[in-house]
Amino acid sequence: MKQRLKNVVAPILAVAALAAAATAVAQQAPKPEQLIKWRQSAYQVIAWNTGRVKANVDGQYNKEEVIKAANTIAAIANSGLGALYAPGTETGKGWHDTAVKPELFTDKKAGEVAANFNKEANELAKVAALGDVAAVKTQLGKLQGTCKACHDDFRKKD
Amino acid sequence: MKQRLKNVVAPILAVAALAAAATAVAQQAPKPEQLIKWRQSAYQVIAWNTGRVKANVDGQYNKEEVIKAANTIAAIANSGLGALYAPGTETGKGWHDTAVKPELFTDKKAGEVAANFNKEANELAKVAALGDVAAVKTQLGKLQGTCKACHDDFRKKD
Repeated sequence: MKQRLKNVVAPILAVAALAAAATAVAQQAPKPEQLIKWRQSAYQVIAWNTGRVKANVDGQYNKEEVIKAANTIAAIANSGLGALYAPGTETGKGWHDTAVKPELFTDKKAGEVAANFNKEANELAKVAALGDVAAVKTQLGKLQGTCKACHDDFRKKD
Repeated sequence: MKQRLKNVVAPILAVAALAAAATAVAQQAPKPEQLIKWRQSAYQVIAWNTGRVKANVDGQYNKEEVIKAANTIAAIANSGLGALYAPGTETGKGWHDTAVKPELFTDKKAGEVAANFNKEANELAKVAALGDVAAVKTQLGKLQGTCKACHDDFRKKD
């Protein structure tokens, strides 16, 4: 009888403990859905700005616009996006279901991929300030290579 | 025989024409829905970062995190968000239906409101670099005042 009671009570206590922990987390930090929405938004802003740089190097070049775009990409890269991948955000829905693979949260390579993105984004901001179109085009390619590397390894296919 | 050849060739030509059209569209400007999605994303990233600054001035202060957050807000403010309010984006759906009022596209005050936001965002980045918590708190208030001013005049109520 004691064992049966234990079998019933233990899971209830575990659930209660989890709920209490979840409440404490909710009071401190934004909800996982909010974090997922923010990271999805951050990549949209990055996409807007890489698209602008590409349109400039492929068409009429506006140095000031490229500087603004590159600075925005670099600022977001340096903003600490890792905080938007907090525990609890492995699955869930922001603007849409997250496309992240579980490996991102466990594979050490994820840190390298993120560091490469930051490095190339900061380099693009430096190169953009100089206004050499060919150099910006080359550096944009390097930056986009880091996007693709992460997508290949850590983003689910459509 | 001729008819059979036509049956084979016509769909190929149709696909080729579609592909050419798709390429032409890709080379043109992004669609209004994309612009709306990008601007909605930009404000989400701003909200993430103003929230981080607020959490820091209200709780434990991390100077480096506040600098990153303030730099991100300033970069987005300086990025040229006006381009995301191109003609054709007065109505439409990005992540959700745009909440912008038509007045934003016609009222001269909109330019002032945007300029105030940029000014206070750049000032927040400067103040954040110095690390004076009280000064950051005051400046965050000024920045949020410019958000509210725009929402009051140019955002539809829920």
